[in-house]
Amino acid sequence: MLERYGHGGDIMTAVSLYGGEASDYLDFSSNIYPYGPPISVTKALLEHVQVVTQYPDPRARKLTARIANRHQIDCDQIIVGNGGAELIDLCIQVVKPQRVGVIHPSFSEYVVCAQKRGIPVSAVVAKVEDHFQPQMEELARLIQKVDMLFLTIPNNPTGVMLPQADVEQVADWCAESETVLILDEAFLHFVDGEEEMRWRWQQHSHVICLRSLTKFYALPGLRLGYGLMSAEWVHRFRKMQISWSVNSLAQVAGQAALLDREFDDKVHKWIQCERAWLGRHLASIPGITLFAGKANYHLLRLHHQKWSAQRLQYNLGKERILIRDCSTYTGLDENYVRVAVKKREENVVLVEKIRELLDGY
Amino acid sequence: MLERYGHGGDIMTAVSLYGGEASDYLDFSSNIYPYGPPISVTKALLEHVQVVTQYPDPRARKLTARIANRHQIDCDQIIVGNGGAELIDLCIQVVKPQRVGVIHPSFSEYVVCAQKRGIPVSAVVAKVEDHFQPQMEELARLIQKVDMLFLTIPNNPTGVMLPQADVEQVADWCAESETVLILDEAFLHFVDGEEEMRWRWQQHSHVICLRSLTKFYALPGLRLGYGLMSAEWVHRFRKMQISWSVNSLAQVAGQAALLDREFDDKVHKWIQCERAWLGRHLASIPGITLFAGKANYHLLRLHHQKWSAQRLQYNLGKERILIRDCSTYTGLDENYVRVAVKKREENVVLVEKIRELLDGY
Repeated sequence: MLERYGHGGDIMTAVSLYGGEASDYLDFSSNIYPYGPPISVTKALLEHVQVVTQYPDPRARKLTARIANRHQIDCDQIIVGNGGAELIDLCIQVVKPQRVGVIHPSFSEYVVCAQKRGIPVSAVVAKVEDHFQPQMEELARLIQKVDMLFLTIPNNPTGVMLPQADVEQVADWCAESETVLILDEAFLHFVDGEEEMRWRWQQHSHVICLRSLTKFYALPGLRLGYGLMSAEWVHRFRKMQISWSVNSLAQVAGQAALLDREFDDKVHKWIQCERAWLGRHLASIPGITLFAGKANYHLLRLHHQKWSAQRLQYNLGKERILIRDCSTYTGLDENYVRVAVKKREENVVLVEKIRELLDGY
Repeated sequence: MLERYGHGGDIMTAVSLYGGEASDYLDFSSNIYPYGPPISVTKALLEHVQVVTQYPDPRARKLTARIANRHQIDCDQIIVGNGGAELIDLCIQVVKPQRVGVIHPSFSEYVVCAQKRGIPVSAVVAKVEDHFQPQMEELARLIQKVDMLFLTIPNNPTGVMLPQADVEQVADWCAESETVLILDEAFLHFVDGEEEMRWRWQQHSHVICLRSLTKFYALPGLRLGYGLMSAEWVHRFRKMQISWSVNSLAQVAGQAALLDREFDDKVHKWIQCERAWLGRHLASIPGITLFAGKANYHLLRLHHQKWSAQRLQYNLGKERILIRDCSTYTGLDENYVRVAVKKREENVVLVEKIRELLDGY
C-alpha cells in the first residue's frame, strides 16, 4: 500500500508502486498548502543558502523571538522542533507517562511514539454516528485512567473540532486528575477564526500546545514545528532534545514566514473558498459521504459495493493521483479516504476522476 | 563562556558576548572544512529548493543507496540521521544500556545523552603523559563493567587515534563481554589513509559505526550523518527514530556530495598540507604545547602563567576569532584549547594573533 511507512505524502513509494516520475503526481495524500511557500521564504532560502556551512543556532533564538511575537508570549515558553514528530516524541520522553490516552481516529504518531517505548495506550473512539465527536462521559473516564492525553484540534483525519467549551472542560478534567494535556494544533492555522482560539492555555502548566509551520507555509521538507508550554516544561524539553535538532534553513524559512502576514490572509481566503468548493463537488458524487473538514482536508466514506479505499487509491494512483487510504486508522474501516484541498484546477481533476471511476461500475 | 550550549560553532553567542556581526567572525571553534561544500552540492541545493514543499522521503532511499555504494555494503545496514547527535541519542535509546563507558576527554554528547536518561557512566581517562592514549588494561576493565562503549576515531578534542590493532583488541573484548561498541568516526574522513580503515566491522553485530557528512562536506547547518550496523540493529533504530527525521535538502545535499570524488581528493590534499603548516607554526609559539591532531583540528596546551584557555578565548573573541575552550572536557584542565584547521590566510591570522597576545605578557 501507499502508506508503507505509516503516512501520506510518500511520493517515492508512489513511483515504485504506480510508475512515472515524482513530478507526475498530484498529491492529495498530504495536507500541504498547494501554492508553495511565501515568496519571501523562497527568497530567504536562496539568499541564505550559505548558512548550511555553519552549525544551526542551537536555541533557534531569532525564530523563537518571532514566534513569541506572533503569540504574544515569552521566549522561554517556546521550544522549536524538527517537525511536529520530534515534539510529539519529546512530550512522551519528557513527561514519561504511565499510560497515554488518545481519541480514535487520530494521527497515528501518538500511539506509535508511546508503544515504541513500551507505554500502554487507552483510547475512546469517536463514532461516525456522533459525527466523530467523542462522548464527553467517555472522555472523562479516559482522563482518569491516563496521565497524558493527546487532543488534536482540528482532528486529523476527520477534520472535526471539539467545541471550545468542551476543550475547556477537558482541560479542567485533566487538571483535576493531573493528566498532561497535549493539544496538537498542527492544522489550526487553516481554521476560520483560529486567531480567536489562539493559545489561551499559557496559565495552565499541565497543557502543552504543539504547532506546525510546515503545512500552512508549505515547507514539510524542511521540518519545523514548535511547542508552547510553561517555562519549566521548556527547560525539561531542552534537556531531552538532541543538539542542533532544527536545521539552519528551517530556521531561516520560519523567520521569514512569520513576518509575512499577507501570506496568512491569502491562505485564509483560499481555504475558505476552496474547501467549500471541493466539499460540495465531492458530496455530489453518488456513492460518497463527505465529512466536511474544518482544516485543509476532507474525510470521505465510500458506500459503493465495488469500491474500497484501497481500490480507489490504487486506481487513482495509476492515474498519478494520490489519496490517503484511511483504513489504517483505528475507528475507521476500509471505506474511508482523506483528500487534501488543493488548487482549483487540481481539485477539478480529482472530482472528475473519482466520479468517472465510481460511475464506471 | 562561548560554549553556553555545550559546543563550539555558536556564532550567535559569540555576537552576544563580543559584539559585531556573525559574518565578522573567523570560527576556529568548530571543525568544518573551510572552503565550503562541493560546488555540485550548492548547485543541487539551489536547483532543488522546491523539495521543501514535499515531505522528505521517510527512508532517505536515494541517499542510502549512495552510501551503500560508497562503503560497498547493503542498504539495510545503513541508517541516515539528523546529524551525528541524533544517531548517538538513538544508540542509547535503542540499546538501552545499563551503564555506558567513555574514554575522557571526548565528545560530550555521549555522557549528556546517557545522563539525561538516568543511565550511569563509567570512564577511563587518557592522560597527557600517555599522549592521550588510554591504558589498555584500564580499558579492558572498563569494558567488563559497561554494556555500551563509545570510542571516537580519531578522538575529539585530542585528535589522537587508537592504533588499529588496539581497536581490534577492544572490539574483541567487547564481543566477549557482550558490550555494544559505538565507533564514532565523525572525523575519520579527514584522516590520511582512512580508506584503508573503512568499515571492516560489518561482520560484528556488536559494533555500530557512526559517520558524519557535514564536517568534511561543510554542511553542519543541514544536519546529516549515518550509522553502519547489522540489519537487525537498523530495523530497531528505524522503529525508534522519529518520522521524517532527515530533511529533504540534507538528503539532496548528501546525494550530490557522495558522487563528488574529486572533492574528496581536494580536501585530502588541503588537510595534509594545512594541518602540518598550522601545527608547525602553533608549536613554534613560546608558551604553547601542541598535540598534533590526525583530523582537522589541533589541541593546544597553554603553559603561560597569565593565560588560561578562557582568557585566550575571550581576548581572541574580542578580535572576532573563535576558539574552543576545552576546560569543559573531563580530563583536561583550564589550559587546553582546540583550534580547527582552516584556510591558509585564516591560519596565518590565528597564529599571529595568538603569538601577539602571548608575547604581550
